[in-house]
Amino acid sequence: MSRIRATYLVACDAHAAQDRADAIRVEQSVEMPLAGVHDRRILEDIVGQVESVEPAGDGRFRIVIGLASATARPGIAQLMNMLYGNTSLHADVELLDADFPDEVAAGFAGPRHGVSGLRRLTGVGAGPITCTALKPQGSSVEVLAGLCHDFASAGIHIIKDDHGLSDQAYSPFIQRLRACQAAVRRANAGRGAREGEGSLYAPSLAGTPRQVYEQARLSREEGVKIVLVAPMLLGLPVFEELVAEHLGPECAVLAHPAMGGGARIAPPLLFGKLFRMLGADAVIFTGYGGRFAYTRERCRDIAEAARAPLHDMKPAMPVPAGGMKLERVDELVDFYGPDTMLLIGGDLLIAGEQLLARGREFAEKVASRG
Amino acid sequence: MSRIRATYLVACDAHAAQDRADAIRVEQSVEMPLAGVHDRRILEDIVGQVESVEPAGDGRFRIVIGLASATARPGIAQLMNMLYGNTSLHADVELLDADFPDEVAAGFAGPRHGVSGLRRLTGVGAGPITCTALKPQGSSVEVLAGLCHDFASAGIHIIKDDHGLSDQAYSPFIQRLRACQAAVRRANAGRGAREGEGSLYAPSLAGTPRQVYEQARLSREEGVKIVLVAPMLLGLPVFEELVAEHLGPECAVLAHPAMGGGARIAPPLLFGKLFRMLGADAVIFTGYGGRFAYTRERCRDIAEAARAPLHDMKPAMPVPAGGMKLERVDELVDFYGPDTMLLIGGDLLIAGEQLLARGREFAEKVASRG
Repeated sequence: MSRIRATYLVACDAHAAQDRADAIRVEQSVEMPLAGVHDRRILEDIVGQVESVEPAGDGRFRIVIGLASATARPGIAQLMNMLYGNTSLHADVELLDADFPDEVAAGFAGPRHGVSGLRRLTGVGAGPITCTALKPQGSSVEVLAGLCHDFASAGIHIIKDDHGLSDQAYSPFIQRLRACQAAVRRANAGRGAREGEGSLYAPSLAGTPRQVYEQARLSREEGVKIVLVAPMLLGLPVFEELVAEHLGPECAVLAHPAMGGGARIAPPLLFGKLFRMLGADAVIFTGYGGRFAYTRERCRDIAEAARAPLHDMKPAMPVPAGGMKLERVDELVDFYGPDTMLLIGGDLLIAGEQLLARGREFAEKVASRG
Repeated sequence: MSRIRATYLVACDAHAAQDRADAIRVEQSVEMPLAGVHDRRILEDIVGQVESVEPAGDGRFRIVIGLASATARPGIAQLMNMLYGNTSLHADVELLDADFPDEVAAGFAGPRHGVSGLRRLTGVGAGPITCTALKPQGSSVEVLAGLCHDFASAGIHIIKDDHGLSDQAYSPFIQRLRACQAAVRRANAGRGAREGEGSLYAPSLAGTPRQVYEQARLSREEGVKIVLVAPMLLGLPVFEELVAEHLGPECAVLAHPAMGGGARIAPPLLFGKLFRMLGADAVIFTGYGGRFAYTRERCRDIAEAARAPLHDMKPAMPVPAGGMKLERVDELVDFYGPDTMLLIGGDLLIAGEQLLARGREFAEKVASRG
C-alpha cells in the first residue's frame, strides 16, 4: 500500500519521543486505541507507521510517519486532515514536510503556467519579474486606478491589489477591476507596448466560494491574465476548486501567504510545495530583511521548494516581499537568482509625487539584471 | 467610525512592546509606511489604533488594536484577513480575542439551533447530550453502519462520523450516508422511539465547496438532522456559505476543531466565538485529561465562550472530546454543567463484543444527570 511520508518536528524529552511518534501515527490515521482495532487489514494497511525518530537539536525530534495514501483523499481538505488535522492542536508539533507518492501527487495539477508561463505572460525572457501593490486600504477606486496607471507607465510588470482590498464600500471589487484594468491598458498603449507585452493588473479575489468564483468570471470577462489569492484565507479547498474549475486555463495565479500562520506548518512546505501543488504560479512570502522575522535560510528553503523538481509539476516563481526596498534589488537578485519575482510596494508608494520616477527606477534596475 | 477591538498576545521585550503595537496597527490596516499615506480620512478612519499595551506575564504583552470595521468586510475571509492575515506570519504573536461592534456581528447569523435547538432535536430536555463517533478509518460501510446501529440501540443521542471519514474508496460518502441513516432508523424503531426522539446520525461533510454542497444536498434528501464539519479544513468562508445557503434551516451543525492549530489563534476565540458566529450549534474541542494538553482553565474558557451572551446570537453547546472516558462522566458533567454534549468514541469502541452494553452504560449514566 502506498504511503505519504509526513515529517513532524516535536518539542519533547528524549525519553518521550518514541511515545509521541506512536501517538501521532494513531492520531493521524485511525484515531482510536489500537486495542479496539480488530481488522487485520486496517492494522496493516491503514494505521500510520513510524518510519524514523531522530534528534533535531534544540530539544526537538524529527519524526517521520508513513500515512496510508488511501485515507488521504479525495482532495486537499482530506490530505490536510490526515497530515495535520488533530495534531495541529498540539502546540509543540510542527508539520515540517511531506513527500507524496506519485498516485497522490497525480491528484494535483500544480502550476498551469509556472516560471516559463509567467515569462511568456510578462514578456520577460530572462532575469527577475517586477511586481508592486496598490495601497493603502481605504483609497477610492479612482486613486487606486491612478496608481495603477503610474506603475504601468513606469514599466512594472505586475501590479497587484493589496491583499487587504476586498469588496469594501469605498472600493467595490467590480468597479476597481474595471478601472484598474482600463488604466493598465491605457498606460501600456501610452508606452507603445505590443499586445501581450505590457504591464498586468492582478485583482485580489476574496470572499465566500460563490463570491470568489463570480469575481473570477468577471476577471476573465475583463481580460485579466493573473489574479492574487490568499489560499489560507479562502480555504485550501476553495483555492483547489478555483484553479481547477473557475479561473480558466489562461489566467495565472499569484498566491499570498496571509493567515499562513508560519510557525506551525513549515513555510517551505505550505508556500513552496502545497500552494504550488494546488496551482500557484508564483508564491509570495515574507523575505528576510523586511518587516518579518524569516531568516535567510528559511527564505532560501521556500524559494528552492517552489522551484525544485516535484513529480512532473511546473516550477513556481518565488516572490519575496513584506518590506522589500528598492536599494536591495541587486542583493535580492544575487540571493534568489533570476527566476524570481520582486515585489516592492510601500517603498515605491512613499515617493508620493515622485512615484512614476521611482517606479521606473525599480523597473530599470531589475531589467539591467536580465 | 466603528472599530473592532482585536487583542493580541505578543512575546517581546518591554521596551519593544509599544513599537510592536504600532507595527501591528499598520500591518493589519493599510500595510504601508504611514509616511506614504497622505489622505487624512484614511489616517483617521482606516489606519488601526493602539488602544492599550499591557504586560500579560511570562514576557508577553496584551495589545489591543482598534481596527476599522469598514475594512473588514464582506464576510469571514476579509474579517480574518484584517484580524490576523499578515500578523499570523509573526511566530510570536497570538490572536487572543476580538470584540465586534453590532454592525459587524450583524453580518453573521450565529447558531440557528444552539443549545435549545439541540435539546429539541434530541429530545433531551435537561442534562447533557451524548455523542459518539464511528471509527476506525479504513472500515467498510457495512462495519460502520453496524456500529451505528449498536450505538443507536444503546440510546446514544448523536452518532457522528469520525472526522477522518471522507469519501474514500473503502467507504464512499453516499453509501455510508444511506447505510448509517437507515441503521439509525432501524435501531430507533427497534427501541420504540417516537418520531423525532431517537438517535441522530451526523455525517461528516468534506472536500471542495462543490463536493461539500452536494453532500449537504444528499444529506437533506436522506433526512439528516445534524452534520459534522471541520471549518478550518473546509475553509471558514466555505463553512459560512454552507450554513447560510446549503444546509437548510432544519439541519444543525457540529463543528470539529481539526487544523485549528490551537496555539496561534486562542481556542476560546476560534472555537467558542468565531465558529459560533458562523453557525456552529455545538463545538467540539479537546478536553483536559484526554490525549491533548489543554488545561482545565482553557477548557472552561472555551465552554464559556460558546455559551456566553454574544450580540443576539444563540448559545452553542460545548463538546469536550479527544480521549474522554466513560468513567469520567460525572466529573465532566460537574465541570462543564448540563448544557454540554459529551463525546466518547474510542473508549466505547474498545469494548468490542460488549459495545452495546458499554454504549448503554454511557447513555444511562448521562441520563441520570439530567
